This record gives sequence, structure tokens and C-alpha cells, in this order.
Amino acid sequence: AGDPAAGKAKAAICAACHGADGVAMIPGYPNLKGQNEQYLANALKAYKNKERTGGMAMVMQPQASMLNDTDIANVAAYFAQLK
Amino acid sequence: AGDPAAGKAKAAICAACHGADGVAMIPGYPNLKGQNEQYLANALKAYKNKERTGGMAMVMQPQASMLNDTDIANVAAYFAQLK
Repeated sequence: AGDPAAGKAKAAICAACHGADGVAMIPGYPNLKGQNEQYLANALKAYKNKERTGGMAMVMQPQASMLNDTDIANVAAYFAQLK
Repeated sequence: AGDPAAGKAKAAICAACHGADGVAMIPGYPNLKGQNEQYLANALKAYKNKERTGGMAMVMQPQASMLNDTDIANVAAYFAQLK
């Protein structure tokens, strides 16, 4: 499991689209608050590995590519623990 | 926007992995309860169009392929309105 505090420090850019509280205000963007931690990590890795294409993947692929495996675990832990 | 009642009728199979209440009990599977409706529809379409690969896409591609556009809108509306 990741470190939520370390994840928060990496997650500032996520808030631009997914909301500071993990609730996206833009239709079509997923809420991240309380989402399953392992799913969030898997989704980020899928974007990083270009296994997700189409839709907003053009945004998420480069975002995810900036995160290493530890960053991904930490960011996933951060959003998963938001209430 | 889709029809939640019609979506519920199509969503029984989803519950096997994503939970009857839209909260997945299996690590690595996303919660769907209260998720953004348009995002859910976009995600299903991405699986149907094979724009999402890797991970559990091997499960979700065939599931999504059984849904037409109306079904997708309705299933998305159903999970989005779960509290």
C-alpha cells in the first residue's frame, strides 16, 4: 500500500480536473475519492503503458508517464483514503 | 442521460464483481456507486471499442460488447445515481 501523505504532494496537478476533494466537477471525468486503491494504481499504470487509449487518455498518458511506481502507489493511496 | 431503472435491469451481471451496491469487494476492481455518469458511459464505450487493454480489460471488453449505446447510457445512469 502507498503512502497517502506522499501521494498528496504528487496529487496537486490531479485536482485541476478531478477536484481538490477527489470529486470531479467536469462531466466525463471520474471521481477519485474513496476509489479502490489497487484499481487507481492499475488505471494509472494502464495509462502509463498506453493500454488505455481514446477519450481522455491523451491527457492521462502523459500525466501518468511522469509518475514512477512509488508515486503511483502513493497517489492511489491518497485518493483512496479521501472521505 | 440514461434511464436508471432500465439500467438496473442490465446491471445484474455487473454486481458479480462491482458489488450489488456498486462497491467492489475485490481489490483492483473499481467502485461504481455515485461515479460520474458520463465517465461511466465513456469507460464502457472505451472497453467496447477495445481502447482499453491490459489488466481486467479482457473481462470488460466482452461485457461491454454485449451492450448497445442505449444500454450503456442506462447502466451508467443506474450506477451514477446509487448513494
